[in-house]
Amino acid sequence: VCAELYWEGGEEKQKQKHPFHICCCFALCHRPPKLREISWLLFVFFSSDIEISRAQSPKAVDVLAKEIGLLTDEVEIYGQTKAKVRLSLLERLKDQPDGKYVLVAGITPTPLGEGKSTVTIGLVQALTAHLNINSFACLRQPSQGPTFGVKGGAAGGGYAQVIPMEEFNLHLTGDIHAITAANNLLAAAIDARILHENTQSDKALYNRLVPVVNGVRGFSAIQLARLRRLGISKTDPGSLTEEEIHKFARLDIDPSTITWQRVVDTNDRFLRKITVGQANTEKGFVRQAQFDIAVASEIMAILALTTSLQDMKERLGKMVVANDKKGEPVTAEDLGVTGALAVLMKDAIKPTLMQTLEGTPVFVHAGPFANIAHGNSSVLADKIALKLVGEKGFVVTEAGFGADIGMEKFFNIKCRASGLIPSVVVLVATVRALKMHGGGPNVTAGAPLKKEYTEENLQLVADGCCNLQKQIQITQLFGVPVVVALNVFKTDSPAEIDLVCKIAKQSGAFDAVPCDHWSAGGRGAVKLAQAVEKAANQKNSFKYLYSLELPIVEKIRIIAQKVYGAQDIELSPAAQSQVDRYTRQGFGNLPICMAKTHLSLSHQPERKGVPTGFILPISDVRASIGAGFIYPLVGTMSTMPGLPTRPCFYDIDLDPITEQVKGLF
Amino acid sequence: VCAELYWEGGEEKQKQKHPFHICCCFALCHRPPKLREISWLLFVFFSSDIEISRAQSPKAVDVLAKEIGLLTDEVEIYGQTKAKVRLSLLERLKDQPDGKYVLVAGITPTPLGEGKSTVTIGLVQALTAHLNINSFACLRQPSQGPTFGVKGGAAGGGYAQVIPMEEFNLHLTGDIHAITAANNLLAAAIDARILHENTQSDKALYNRLVPVVNGVRGFSAIQLARLRRLGISKTDPGSLTEEEIHKFARLDIDPSTITWQRVVDTNDRFLRKITVGQANTEKGFVRQAQFDIAVASEIMAILALTTSLQDMKERLGKMVVANDKKGEPVTAEDLGVTGALAVLMKDAIKPTLMQTLEGTPVFVHAGPFANIAHGNSSVLADKIALKLVGEKGFVVTEAGFGADIGMEKFFNIKCRASGLIPSVVVLVATVRALKMHGGGPNVTAGAPLKKEYTEENLQLVADGCCNLQKQIQITQLFGVPVVVALNVFKTDSPAEIDLVCKIAKQSGAFDAVPCDHWSAGGRGAVKLAQAVEKAANQKNSFKYLYSLELPIVEKIRIIAQKVYGAQDIELSPAAQSQVDRYTRQGFGNLPICMAKTHLSLSHQPERKGVPTGFILPISDVRASIGAGFIYPLVGTMSTMPGLPTRPCFYDIDLDPITEQVKGLF
Repeated sequence: VCAELYWEGGEEKQKQKHPFHICCCFALCHRPPKLREISWLLFVFFSSDIEISRAQSPKAVDVLAKEIGLLTDEVEIYGQTKAKVRLSLLERLKDQPDGKYVLVAGITPTPLGEGKSTVTIGLVQALTAHLNINSFACLRQPSQGPTFGVKGGAAGGGYAQVIPMEEFNLHLTGDIHAITAANNLLAAAIDARILHENTQSDKALYNRLVPVVNGVRGFSAIQLARLRRLGISKTDPGSLTEEEIHKFARLDIDPSTITWQRVVDTNDRFLRKITVGQANTEKGFVRQAQFDIAVASEIMAILALTTSLQDMKERLGKMVVANDKKGEPVTAEDLGVTGALAVLMKDAIKPTLMQTLEGTPVFVHAGPFANIAHGNSSVLADKIALKLVGEKGFVVTEAGFGADIGMEKFFNIKCRASGLIPSVVVLVATVRALKMHGGGPNVTAGAPLKKEYTEENLQLVADGCCNLQKQIQITQLFGVPVVVALNVFKTDSPAEIDLVCKIAKQSGAFDAVPCDHWSAGGRGAVKLAQAVEKAANQKNSFKYLYSLELPIVEKIRIIAQKVYGAQDIELSPAAQSQVDRYTRQGFGNLPICMAKTHLSLSHQPERKGVPTGFILPISDVRASIGAGFIYPLVGTMSTMPGLPTRPCFYDIDLDPITEQVKGLF
Repeated sequence: VCAELYWEGGEEKQKQKHPFHICCCFALCHRPPKLREISWLLFVFFSSDIEISRAQSPKAVDVLAKEIGLLTDEVEIYGQTKAKVRLSLLERLKDQPDGKYVLVAGITPTPLGEGKSTVTIGLVQALTAHLNINSFACLRQPSQGPTFGVKGGAAGGGYAQVIPMEEFNLHLTGDIHAITAANNLLAAAIDARILHENTQSDKALYNRLVPVVNGVRGFSAIQLARLRRLGISKTDPGSLTEEEIHKFARLDIDPSTITWQRVVDTNDRFLRKITVGQANTEKGFVRQAQFDIAVASEIMAILALTTSLQDMKERLGKMVVANDKKGEPVTAEDLGVTGALAVLMKDAIKPTLMQTLEGTPVFVHAGPFANIAHGNSSVLADKIALKLVGEKGFVVTEAGFGADIGMEKFFNIKCRASGLIPSVVVLVATVRALKMHGGGPNVTAGAPLKKEYTEENLQLVADGCCNLQKQIQITQLFGVPVVVALNVFKTDSPAEIDLVCKIAKQSGAFDAVPCDHWSAGGRGAVKLAQAVEKAANQKNSFKYLYSLELPIVEKIRIIAQKVYGAQDIELSPAAQSQVDRYTRQGFGNLPICMAKTHLSLSHQPERKGVPTGFILPISDVRASIGAGFIYPLVGTMSTMPGLPTRPCFYDIDLDPITEQVKGLF
């Protein structure tokens, strides 16, 4: 591996100046890379992702920002390597045509992941540096939980990564922290409100909610809005009748219906189920609750789907946190907290600009869960990037999990929210995952790979290509051309590689190419870039899979049958009752966000290849009304990872002299 | 008030260029203030703190950074108005003499606070703009909890505030979020470790803690350090005896002794007492726990006291989180998490540069609780500022609560950690608080003030000056000259003001002056600045109050008797047993951080003036070993505020068009 890294990657580590606006940035200083040739050979023999990241000094982010055409007051610098980009840019460039929009999805993966992020980064590196085409990668911000838990970081890897990877994997520009703060303020407001309503008369409650301040008594703006929703057109607090006071002052939340959970960005398994309110000051109003990992917050899903500050504020206000005792939804707006949530999120809405190892621009923005949410990075980052690259440029983004989940949601949820039309899907496959689908032994994180995966086995590959074929067919349901990217490992044989590419093309892929971006950076993805460029010029007949007007159950059935290959679906009584409730509450025409395992096309992770004849069980149905989707649960979904016996943090360290981070990967 | 603001403050709102290095920054663009004269009259009639803040555009922080002599690579810009300053500056300026070091403390306050922050800011504005002396304010970062809860923001107020106040009061540069992340990673590690130890044999545990990776088995650096602490000098994992494996792999934490709590930066009363671990995956290992507000984390106290990255890392590792079943302390280092904590805190250690309304530089850095911690901003910010202002310059910082608590801890804990010698104490008093001490009626947040406080009453003032006199005497225990700053309200009569100043001087103050900085900015604190400058040239015989070598109980008694005026102290059996334990564990020679109410010199908040004859009850004794202090609890201390019926957030809003924040105060 090390030798390969050297021979194939060594000569490629030149930082690329981005071709954007190339003629108007002559004056910019292009700092040479700091790689010292003499130590290079030594270096590659010991290189890890973070060492590769550290060996390449990123160009100053203000230089990058100028290269890609950002104006000074559209950029907020955060240190040397990160910047937030203001949304005002969308107004300035509103008449500029969008670039091409490429989604990177994958076949059903092994638990190790098949390299969608590295393909995304390798592809933009190839487009930019080798085809001289403006391009931009849009990625999700990773949760800090897994960084210190089992999985490690998520900046890509090898010679296809975002640098500095420790910035990418740690606090970044604070967006996840802002989400945590907003999420938990709302959670605290819910329980405190229930307590205050339970311990005060209507009159006392009203007097506190609408106090006399400096001799004057008035409703705040958010209280006036609530009065209007209640059909009360009065504005003088003294003029409300007792009944109106009762309606106004009591949200009457039914504690058993609370769906809003607290969050932390830490893998803290002991918070999966807790009892809160046990101090005497809470007067016995205990209840069972839970913490989720921060990225599972609905506010993260909103950040990913919102299109403007106004839209985000409206979505935050619409979030349903519980039902009242009559079964009507109670929202963040009812709790009076919309404005405060928007204030907490005012900077998080701006995408963060970083760069790849080769200097290509990257937006890192939002990272919602791919099961209970839609698992895609932000609409706003994509929109801004599509303007910045210009009509002939490319924006490459990725969807979580396999194409059956991440891509389906990308099309039906994210593209619906943005109105953007994707040009090409890149479907990432590995010989390893295909062998697993062909009947190879289990692949488990942490355990060494069995020999089936390290030695040539054409039969397993051929048998496993059924999953690739099925995922190609799923892509075609949406009318978008698909290019298969085979992410090559050093143990893959030429015959295995050829076989996959041949079957992929026979299965309807526009093209299928092997990629070596991990070991060779952009140069290893040139063929992929060429194929993607050609595919983007194909006829595109993009369409959604279902109409929003269909009943909730119908929409679930369409996804289950057409995408997963299920024979039918089966709703539990709880799920059916939730469907009825949401339909009655007027939420029936939202898109569907399936919470299903990513390890199989079916709901059973052990069923590899292309399972058939199964009935997809829907155990429960929930809703993220602010984000704007209904999410049926197919089995139980963990929303809080745990720490193993030996978490990643054992290897993570900081050198107090050089300030360098060690042990992140 | 409004008219006063106009006439006394209107002409003063010119941004000041800082006198630092004034001759070497001719070339810098000095942007004119954006106050529009025509709308000014209208403006002041409706002005709130945030409106005043918003009406003054701060100068760009890179301009400010250059003015005060920072080099480009010593500054990390965060947007337009905030920057982090690198610690490398301390090395560059190590041979430069420090400036004068001024502490702002206060008399025993009313629950409304008496304006230490505004005095701090007014004083540096006066020194800089009116006396042409380099000066710097060093302030605490406020918790976001109170901003959305009851108290509101903490940026100072009126014409003595830090701008933009919404940045100051919200995420700032993410330090509190970093503390939350680090604190909660450690908390998750504790519970997960107990679970894994309880459900695995020694051998299984050891195999997981020291796994074979790519055919090689080795200890990580932090595991080798643990082996050394256990007296095992082996480095080959295969060579440990069964007994050594047992010692190495088991921390044997006694769950009943866990003192490490989870934190959130939200006023969430329902987390004051909770039960964790109730999901099936945690196999019945439930326990009672709590969340504290983030600023109560020991990591915040460490951030405030640390002197370098190396020192911070050592302190983080030394934090004691529980005892093992033999009664020995278990540390973060034992849990293998020191490096990860340091990585999470690597940016938080850099102070954040902002500015006052008049353009004076401000460091905002750390904000530990003033009861269970020491309530002072960071040592590092003070050290850097003392170098930046130069020998003749002034650094003004403040201590939480009254002088009996905040100042006592500033001297005995913070100055011990930093080695810095304070030059002057400014003791802030108000006629309002003095009247309360003289026997005036209760002062309660939210309720209108009684007429005793709005009409002249010389008798109440005279009687209440006993508290001022006592706090002056406390200051003199430390050998530092004290200047009394009377923070003038519009209802204070000239006779009342004169009386306070006269008594203050008779009581041993070097000087006593009325201040109008709230309504007049720096101009309102010129006399104070002159008095402080004179006092700083007085003979200074600074000394600590007690020797660290004394037994814990003796140190507590000295503080109780000499500072609070107690007759004696009385330890509960629990407190005595903790004292014995800490002494046995080798922590007996740490300084003492009293957790006492700030509303009285005694432990009883209702006893105003100068209580005597009381026995101070010590209900429990705890320790923050990483921060480096023992904290005796005098009564119960709430470490988690709650939300009232109508929290501040009802008034907080974001204008989605202008992006302006409304309703913060």
